[in-house]
Amino acid sequence: MKLNCDMGESFGSWQMGDDEAVMPWIDMANIACGFHASDPDIMSETVACAIAHKVVIGAHPGYDDKPGFGRRSIPHSPAAIRHLVAYQTGALEAICQLHGGHVAYVKPHGALYHDLMGQPVVLEAILTAMAAMNRQRDIPLSLMVLSKRDNSVIEAMARQHQVNLLFEAFADRAYDEQGNLVARSQPGAVHHDHHKILQQALELASGQVTTLSGQILQLQADTLCVHGDNPESIATIADIRKAMTI
Amino acid sequence: MKLNCDMGESFGSWQMGDDEAVMPWIDMANIACGFHASDPDIMSETVACAIAHKVVIGAHPGYDDKPGFGRRSIPHSPAAIRHLVAYQTGALEAICQLHGGHVAYVKPHGALYHDLMGQPVVLEAILTAMAAMNRQRDIPLSLMVLSKRDNSVIEAMARQHQVNLLFEAFADRAYDEQGNLVARSQPGAVHHDHHKILQQALELASGQVTTLSGQILQLQADTLCVHGDNPESIATIADIRKAMTI
Amino acid sequence: MKLNCDMGESFGSWQMGDDEAVMPWIDMANIACGFHASDPDIMSETVACAIAHKVVIGAHPGYDDKPGFGRRSIPHSPAAIRHLVAYQTGALEAICQLHGGHVAYVKPHGALYHDLMGQPVVLEAILTAMAAMNRQRDIPLSLMVLSKRDNSVIEAMARQHQVNLLFEAFADRAYDEQGNLVARSQPGAVHHDHHKILQQALELASGQVTTLSGQILQLQADTLCVHGDNPESIATIADIRKAMTI
Amino acid sequence: MKLNCDMGESFGSWQMGDDEAVMPWIDMANIACGFHASDPDIMSETVACAIAHKVVIGAHPGYDDKPGFGRRSIPHSPAAIRHLVAYQTGALEAICQLHGGHVAYVKPHGALYHDLMGQPVVLEAILTAMAAMNRQRDIPLSLMVLSKRDNSVIEAMARQHQVNLLFEAFADRAYDEQGNLVARSQPGAVHHDHHKILQQALELASGQVTTLSGQILQLQADTLCVHGDNPESIATIADIRKAMTI
Repeated sequence: MKLNCDMGESFGSWQMGDDEAVMPWIDMANIACGFHASDPDIMSETVACAIAHKVVIGAHPGYDDKPGFGRRSIPHSPAAIRHLVAYQTGALEAICQLHGGHVAYVKPHGALYHDLMGQPVVLEAILTAMAAMNRQRDIPLSLMVLSKRDNSVIEAMARQHQVNLLFEAFADRAYDEQGNLVARSQPGAVHHDHHKILQQALELASGQVTTLSGQILQLQADTLCVHGDNPESIATIADIRKAMTI
Repeated sequence: MKLNCDMGESFGSWQMGDDEAVMPWIDMANIACGFHASDPDIMSETVACAIAHKVVIGAHPGYDDKPGFGRRSIPHSPAAIRHLVAYQTGALEAICQLHGGHVAYVKPHGALYHDLMGQPVVLEAILTAMAAMNRQRDIPLSLMVLSKRDNSVIEAMARQHQVNLLFEAFADRAYDEQGNLVARSQPGAVHHDHHKILQQALELASGQVTTLSGQILQLQADTLCVHGDNPESIATIADIRKAMTI
Repeated sequence: MKLNCDMGESFGSWQMGDDEAVMPWIDMANIACGFHASDPDIMSETVACAIAHKVVIGAHPGYDDKPGFGRRSIPHSPAAIRHLVAYQTGALEAICQLHGGHVAYVKPHGALYHDLMGQPVVLEAILTAMAAMNRQRDIPLSLMVLSKRDNSVIEAMARQHQVNLLFEAFADRAYDEQGNLVARSQPGAVHHDHHKILQQALELASGQVTTLSGQILQLQADTLCVHGDNPESIATIADIRKAMTI
Repeated sequence: MKLNCDMGESFGSWQMGDDEAVMPWIDMANIACGFHASDPDIMSETVACAIAHKVVIGAHPGYDDKPGFGRRSIPHSPAAIRHLVAYQTGALEAICQLHGGHVAYVKPHGALYHDLMGQPVVLEAILTAMAAMNRQRDIPLSLMVLSKRDNSVIEAMARQHQVNLLFEAFADRAYDEQGNLVARSQPGAVHHDHHKILQQALELASGQVTTLSGQILQLQADTLCVHGDNPESIATIADIRKAMTI
């Protein structure tokens, strides 16, 4: 079970997160590409840090929206989605080349991730762009998506485009019976208890999760998404990492 | 003798130039990469047009300055230069991959081009970035620079980084004895006469140019930089193209 | 009957429209404020041109979205709407002060205009911002909105905030029976015939319009919105101006 | 002796500084206006906080350069300087109007401040813009500048434009004999000792300062510029405030 975390979300003089403290504990870094956050200098710094810790690099493209941090769904045509995913992934690839590294996967950010999970036309656009890039890449890009109870539709679409999928799950979020994350507005949606988070991480590593209503749900999870927003959450990442290693 | 032209310099709803009319007459398109002009959608459109006309694609990176169209020299560290050149070149590369194409060379834009020609530290940064990218590319990137009477320093630096150079010259600009372009503020700096431009194009194709003071200067020129700003200048491009073909 | 037109929508080196040619024929200039288009330099140029032609100046604020030219509805809280309308209107006011002029009204642009007409919460936010500004202004700002058959709701809200309304109508767009503009996707939605446009302009000046289905609709119109996108449309503006003057 | 501090320098989701903690201790807030930092929402929040603490509001305009945080000198014509100062000041004025407040002064930021102090043409442009705004304002804007041993030239220019000046000094920076701040690259340029900073604050309040070389320099100071970057520096502000009040 790999741990992935959003990284490199500073911008110019503005800091966000503590990438130096998080990087030793994770396996996969979803690196912002300059549209919702970051800039070429911060991307380079983040890539160097990832490579130093042997962390796999993923592109984390978002809508072109720094004021909204990529969290607002802005209307885009499928073609525009293809272009913005390719643009940002290619930009990060070249920054990786400066450090002898490469991009291994794509995990869309914020509203783009949400739109990808909710709108087949957005998923189709992203897969189309990735398939075209993969035809000219030595190492193909995988796409990281949210695992649900039934992943068959997204799997079929990805297969059509010959794009490999990575399914992610959350140790600190409650699941409903469909394998959807319970909306943050609902009570119990987010686990704050350290022990509870560790327990769910271990459960997910065994291929299942206990839903909010207490049922056992089978859930494929190649990787857990963790957050490094503050010292406490970084400590949790470290503990998950250690628990996974045993 | 190849003709190169700055292309894809529209942005969003704002048009600039008439790329459709220029593309049939040129050999190499210097395509803006979203920092001084363009956006992912326009880049995709421009790349598709270039490929349709079998025009070689070059990245045309500039300073991140749409309000100043990349014409203002903004202080950057060498590292920041490396990052912005890699970022933009990689972004265009991925857009090219959407269309089955690739980037063949880099020609910096505006103030970045001017700084590259005037400041060895900027040239060094660009070559360093390109060398790193080339180590991981199947098809290496060349760097397009301004040809002068004596290109030995720039050639030595490029050789060190194993980056191939493309020397460009101008058919519509007067040269001084050092092979510098006469400053636009000087009388006679820009040729407006159609016949005069054609004559200088043919002269440059034979490896020399008559300076403003009437001397014959040997000048290496792999490519002529042409401009497609208006119907008249597009007609001139077409005539240069035809004259070169004979 | 006043003519209003969107003006100052260039950006940096990118031109849009021919403001110099349009300004002599209009009464009210809706001047872009740097978010969906324009920049401080172009705003200053446009304001100077408006003042030279004794044209009344309106702020034309939009969503912060140059890539989408303010035509995409981007989610904003009511507070954020208040802030962006105030910010842009104040910015234009100060640019006017450089030329001894002032802003007389606000006409939101593109998606913000559309959201204002369709979402009471957006209208409320804009009125709230304008009322607060008006409390400290010598000359109060009016709000320009689209006239419909029944304007009573919008009038009641404006009255509550003590904001004066300006109702605009279109000479080149077909109306349905509710006084809505027929969607551009429908046949007959846009009048291209010069004579037809002139006729509808005169009809609107008399307080009514013939709908697409042939009925006569009473429609309050303080001002006609005209477009200066090309030489033909500018000629139409001139003709409407002349017809109105008789 | 008033204390002024740069405030409202967050942007979107990126925090900078702790305005809530600093505001109670200062008299004048230099509020960023959306070009080098901030956005309309953060400006509104900062203005509300200043008004709640009865802190005088100043516009803190900078070059349009978020990636460089306004610290890079970007070439601008005098007209462009006038426009950007007016634009940002007017924008903040309108945000103030939303809260029943107003802008009382202008203190340029970063490279613009540096250029203002070093290039008379920049100072002239800023004064020209402010004079034009003042002609239409009920409450005129003052300009905050760096006090030196001899302020006669800047005073003469400001008098010509009838713009009032506010001279600021620094309690934590060493001065040379001309009343210039010693460059940060020099040893002893920045005081880190809490006691030393308090001592210099009190000295400046009495109209003089001890230079790095130990001489007593007469220095006009209407206000001290303080920094609220971290808990330690905020504690220093509080102590200066208390020492001043005695």
